[in-house]
Amino acid sequence: MLLSSESRPATPRAADPLVAFAEIRALVLPVQRHYVNQLAPPVANIAGYHAGWLDEFGENLADPAGKALRPVLAVLAARAVGAPETTAVRAAVVAEMIHDFSLLHDDVIDGDRQRRHRPAAWVVFGTHAAILAGDALLAAAVRLTAETDRSADRRAVRRLLATVRELVRGQTLDVTFENRESVTPDEYSDMAQGKTAALLSCACSLGPLLAGAPDAVTGELAAFGFQLGMAFQFADDLLGLWGDPAATGKPVLADVHRRKKSAPVLAALNSGGTDARRLAELYERPGALSDDEATEAADLIERCGGKEWAEARAARHTASALTHLHRVEGEAEPLEELAALVRHITHRDR
Amino acid sequence: MLLSSESRPATPRAADPLVAFAEIRALVLPVQRHYVNQLAPPVANIAGYHAGWLDEFGENLADPAGKALRPVLAVLAARAVGAPETTAVRAAVVAEMIHDFSLLHDDVIDGDRQRRHRPAAWVVFGTHAAILAGDALLAAAVRLTAETDRSADRRAVRRLLATVRELVRGQTLDVTFENRESVTPDEYSDMAQGKTAALLSCACSLGPLLAGAPDAVTGELAAFGFQLGMAFQFADDLLGLWGDPAATGKPVLADVHRRKKSAPVLAALNSGGTDARRLAELYERPGALSDDEATEAADLIERCGGKEWAEARAARHTASALTHLHRVEGEAEPLEELAALVRHITHRDR
Repeated sequence: MLLSSESRPATPRAADPLVAFAEIRALVLPVQRHYVNQLAPPVANIAGYHAGWLDEFGENLADPAGKALRPVLAVLAARAVGAPETTAVRAAVVAEMIHDFSLLHDDVIDGDRQRRHRPAAWVVFGTHAAILAGDALLAAAVRLTAETDRSADRRAVRRLLATVRELVRGQTLDVTFENRESVTPDEYSDMAQGKTAALLSCACSLGPLLAGAPDAVTGELAAFGFQLGMAFQFADDLLGLWGDPAATGKPVLADVHRRKKSAPVLAALNSGGTDARRLAELYERPGALSDDEATEAADLIERCGGKEWAEARAARHTASALTHLHRVEGEAEPLEELAALVRHITHRDR
Repeated sequence: MLLSSESRPATPRAADPLVAFAEIRALVLPVQRHYVNQLAPPVANIAGYHAGWLDEFGENLADPAGKALRPVLAVLAARAVGAPETTAVRAAVVAEMIHDFSLLHDDVIDGDRQRRHRPAAWVVFGTHAAILAGDALLAAAVRLTAETDRSADRRAVRRLLATVRELVRGQTLDVTFENRESVTPDEYSDMAQGKTAALLSCACSLGPLLAGAPDAVTGELAAFGFQLGMAFQFADDLLGLWGDPAATGKPVLADVHRRKKSAPVLAALNSGGTDARRLAELYERPGALSDDEATEAADLIERCGGKEWAEARAARHTASALTHLHRVEGEAEPLEELAALVRHITHRDR
């Protein structure tokens, strides 16, 4: 496709991960749709709505939503070990299907009514539909992983199932935390390992496993994905509190108004002292917070060291991710793109 | 263990499938518990409660519930092809885990509050717990199937995932039928194929697949399980209407009072004529049925040919099951026990 150089200045790919995102998304999406369409008809429609390419009536949407972080990671990690493109795409589809399975069930469990800026699947199609579509996607993802007759598949299947176990563990902790008076930052990290980091790690190792890459290389890419997942979680928590509303599209201090006990909040609440007690008071009090109270809460979180702590954790995991990435001996271009992706994720504004 | 011959008369095993049931259950249960206990703690407790060996506080029950039909089929089918006992037990645990996954989700979806004569898991532990425990069991079952490094595993994994696909399809149809004005007996059969027959077929083929039995033998055992599953469903529907309350433990005409549209009811409703219209009237009318009306409905179902039709279907599937079973060239004793099991299931009174 020809692009006008006036309207779209050419940028080196590694410098702009959004270009890689768009390219990989265009590569993966048709294959993902192909496999989702093989599910039984109502399930395929529900999964297609949830994934973002269908509307609630089963009609195609012009501009499918979603930033496809896991497919991008999967494709770049597979390319980094020189895997064939078909293997890279297969890994990407599997990772995204597992992500979608997990989100479909989590939204039912958490009662979250919004997903990807639209009503959640269970709101549109019912709880039963979201549970069954999740089940079908989980089974389809494992089936796709076990599709060929190469022995490498078996290790990828085991990795995938260990990841599902972690996702369930993380979501179970998350639900448990809702009913507990206090949660330590370490417990929160443990939950994030299961809910977020495990799948990013899996996305980075599926391609290498399927391609039969050396264990040492696969291990470094898995560790890279894990650390990136943790950095992603802390960066996300910081954006929920101090993100620019113009960039995030969410109201100012959205997570304070929702009283979401994200990492900076938990660190602040666990810091002890007068400020922490006042913060706990604001978070436990029934009824909505005024804008002044929300601002006060955000200031308290910062004064209690919550922001600094979360920033330090994000930085530590980012550095660790890059350390593991630099140890990977593989293809230069995809490795550079992965490094650019780290910077994009940890310095993003939305 | 010594048994007193006075208190427990010795019976030839093949003549009494309940002896085989008890023996196999005792063999499989400890292994099943071992694998379920490897799940994350709250999930293990929920799965153990649902499976019937734990109470709601996580304490052991003296007398675990459940008749373990799928484990019994799996063990006998594996023994029929001369599979090692460990393979037979593995197949049984996998089949029962998949059954439990499916029941945990189905009870949430259908809002069924009772399971195995106790409150359903979601009633005791919450919807989130039942969904997550189901997810964990599904993943654990596939993991257990893919555990060894023999190439036979891969075929068993694919079979298992195809079965999950069928379970989802069957449950989706079942939910859809609830909101439809009329369902044909053929559509009902299609649903039963997915919800019931697919898993019994899978239970009968897992052991042979894992043991690398010849395709022809595995195919006959799979077909046997499928036909047995269909016979089981029709026999179950007949018991729900004309079963002896003393034997079933359910009230007289339980399925009529619940207005459950099981196979005989659908056949009757689709028969046309005055009796069918009167039956439809009773089934669509809001409010509870009186005992006289329930008796009238049962008579109408019989007069419209619903009972005869369902009995004919049960007999046809039973005969087909036995035909496939007799084609299996394998170990005599387990094959005899499978034949005895067919008679037990299709002539059972509860």
